[in-house]
Amino acid sequence: MKVTMAAVTALALSSACLAQTAPALPDPAGTDPKALGWMQGFPPAADKVVTFGNGSFYSFPRTRWSFSHMREMLPTVNVWRGSGTPSVLPVAPKDLDKLSFTDDKGAKASWAEMLTRTYTDSIIVLHKGKVIYEKYTGSAEPQLPHSAFSVTKSFIGTLAAMLATEGSLDPSAPVTKYIPELKDSAYGDATVRQVMDMTIGVQYSENYADPKAEIFDYARSGGMLPLPPGYAGPKNFYEFLVKLKKEGNHGEGFAYKTVNAEVLTWIIKRATGKSAAALMSEKIWQKLGAENDAYFSVDAIGSESGGGGLSLPLRDMARFGEMMRLGGKFNGQQIVPTSVVDDIRKGGDPAKFAKAGYPDVLGYGAGYAYRNMWWVSNNKNGVFDARGIHGQRVYIDPKAELVIAKFSSHPIAGNMANIPLTDAAFGALADYLSK
Amino acid sequence: MKVTMAAVTALALSSACLAQTAPALPDPAGTDPKALGWMQGFPPAADKVVTFGNGSFYSFPRTRWSFSHMREMLPTVNVWRGSGTPSVLPVAPKDLDKLSFTDDKGAKASWAEMLTRTYTDSIIVLHKGKVIYEKYTGSAEPQLPHSAFSVTKSFIGTLAAMLATEGSLDPSAPVTKYIPELKDSAYGDATVRQVMDMTIGVQYSENYADPKAEIFDYARSGGMLPLPPGYAGPKNFYEFLVKLKKEGNHGEGFAYKTVNAEVLTWIIKRATGKSAAALMSEKIWQKLGAENDAYFSVDAIGSESGGGGLSLPLRDMARFGEMMRLGGKFNGQQIVPTSVVDDIRKGGDPAKFAKAGYPDVLGYGAGYAYRNMWWVSNNKNGVFDARGIHGQRVYIDPKAELVIAKFSSHPIAGNMANIPLTDAAFGALADYLSK
Repeated sequence: MKVTMAAVTALALSSACLAQTAPALPDPAGTDPKALGWMQGFPPAADKVVTFGNGSFYSFPRTRWSFSHMREMLPTVNVWRGSGTPSVLPVAPKDLDKLSFTDDKGAKASWAEMLTRTYTDSIIVLHKGKVIYEKYTGSAEPQLPHSAFSVTKSFIGTLAAMLATEGSLDPSAPVTKYIPELKDSAYGDATVRQVMDMTIGVQYSENYADPKAEIFDYARSGGMLPLPPGYAGPKNFYEFLVKLKKEGNHGEGFAYKTVNAEVLTWIIKRATGKSAAALMSEKIWQKLGAENDAYFSVDAIGSESGGGGLSLPLRDMARFGEMMRLGGKFNGQQIVPTSVVDDIRKGGDPAKFAKAGYPDVLGYGAGYAYRNMWWVSNNKNGVFDARGIHGQRVYIDPKAELVIAKFSSHPIAGNMANIPLTDAAFGALADYLSK
Repeated sequence: MKVTMAAVTALALSSACLAQTAPALPDPAGTDPKALGWMQGFPPAADKVVTFGNGSFYSFPRTRWSFSHMREMLPTVNVWRGSGTPSVLPVAPKDLDKLSFTDDKGAKASWAEMLTRTYTDSIIVLHKGKVIYEKYTGSAEPQLPHSAFSVTKSFIGTLAAMLATEGSLDPSAPVTKYIPELKDSAYGDATVRQVMDMTIGVQYSENYADPKAEIFDYARSGGMLPLPPGYAGPKNFYEFLVKLKKEGNHGEGFAYKTVNAEVLTWIIKRATGKSAAALMSEKIWQKLGAENDAYFSVDAIGSESGGGGLSLPLRDMARFGEMMRLGGKFNGQQIVPTSVVDDIRKGGDPAKFAKAGYPDVLGYGAGYAYRNMWWVSNNKNGVFDARGIHGQRVYIDPKAELVIAKFSSHPIAGNMANIPLTDAAFGALADYLSK
């Protein structure tokens, strides 16, 4: 436990969120988890162990192993696939590795280079519903769920929107209708809709580069980072959330803060009397015909992290994306109401999104918005996506009939580090497939 | 963390292993986990929380909830079911609840009463391969793996015997051929066969009623109990095992000690270069056509507990039993070599078993033995079984063509508390079905 704070600090300092200039990155080829020997042997050599207690599980390059093995270090709850036969994903392979595109720096690059440069662990590409490309590297395997980080939020946002359509959740209601305990917190005068679209004024920093950022307090409360000796802070998500203080006004501008997803998770649980894992299994995972179970990490009292706790099997994450591309219909049934998908695709208010002040290099065009915890480009292809901070993606391009699910373990926790390069390649692929 | 030792002590004092007189037991009807409200609500009320940190997850009656939710409190590794269709378990229901039998105290009892009195969470009965009875109570659900405790050992023993048949493990070899690190431990002059049959002389007490018994040191090393402040003992299974000291001689008498199963787990991993979870998935779970994944709890460095760490879905545990009843053949294939099943059914040396000195009331007849980590009765029906300390069972009666899989959360950690009553009912059922 002695190295706890050091490890957390090292993690934070080795990361950079939204930095204008990217730090030098380790050569991806030198971070292959198998070549580095993480967790090989019984026991692994002392310097090859990846473990929770000293925080090493969340330090790059060990993350290239740990992101495919989260449950081996954290308590988790199952998202059951049900007992049915997996839905069919037809296969029609294309060799994309040599696909050439102009990267975000204006240089020529290939698809395969993009995968390497974004520290990709696994990726699957569906075009018109067929698997045209699928690849696993390092520790990734098809049946191993990979940490999805904030892709989790899009599942929670979709569930919340589904519950609203069913009438069991009222987006216009005050948050306190469902969670009276939040009365004296930042959420005391917020609506559920403001939480769903992250237009909440709350004192909470998501800056991974600042060791004092609240994101780390949040992670500790949820059991996602080891506790330093003498720790006296909140010991579960609920205890953390009720203490959040207001900063600014609600409803004015988009501000991406993970705690909103945790509050929304709490809301959907209270609205239904069911756990997030049960809701996701019943309403999405079983209906998709998933091949494998997924799981949430849980805090000390069994509460799922709806902000970033999901680990997902790649193919099943792609099924989720394909279902969204098809307006909510997949595996022979309407899983998500079309109105929910339409609402997401339409997006939130671009003027509110613009207030987040993202740098131009991220390529967020005039119509960019955030709705029901999805990123909505409103670009020429109508791309919308779910994303995790280390390069996890569910990328849906309706016009090109393209869905990409991608898991990465990028050393930098920040969109700047991987979105511009990745999106340049994804856009080029869409153009190529649309020729 | 303050209540750690108190919790462990309370646990130990509330249990009695092999006690000649059973303590007064709580009324099972008053321990229904749903009625008691464990872990209901978001968050659960403070006095309804079941959590790892204070040891409450292992205190009865909370165990009636926690045994079906181990992964929500402990790190675990998946035992993958594969991607195939589950094997068929035909159903032909019989109402067994009123089946009458004479219990171990000579009183009349019914099947349903036996289930209640042994704190049964779930049970399934197969006769001639058909499901004649299946029941879930309290927190148990068909898709939720339940802690199997020492049923785990029979999986490890079976895997070891399979590897021996394949030629990748030599039972006659010294343990140190596979684990040189055990040279200076109790296992320094033991053979693999002695480990497989638990005829090892090792200083290690399995007495749950003694708070100082090594079983608790073992559990702490494996991350299965919280660590007291300032804990400086072994922090994984391997560190614990290498320190075990010899006591008595090897090969002379059966002595049931969980550490032998942990050593055997280490051996099969070293012999194959694969984890126990991978071995079980490849060689057993996938081939059975399991409906659901299983899992092992793991220590701080990801090592499975092969002594008691498995959690299993009930129906799939029954498939395992049925496969053993059928001489290793199930789901259209030979899964375990017939020679391995025959060797288990034949049993070990009864004279060595007798040296364990079990009380008569346990009903161990003259031929009783222990082989490859199975309990072998050599009784008139040829019953052999896998068992866990809180009443978990895989009971195989070849003559009656009967297989019973049962999960319990009995408050007493000891065979005395549940085996005599359970076996009286199982025997009566065998007679009834054989009429």
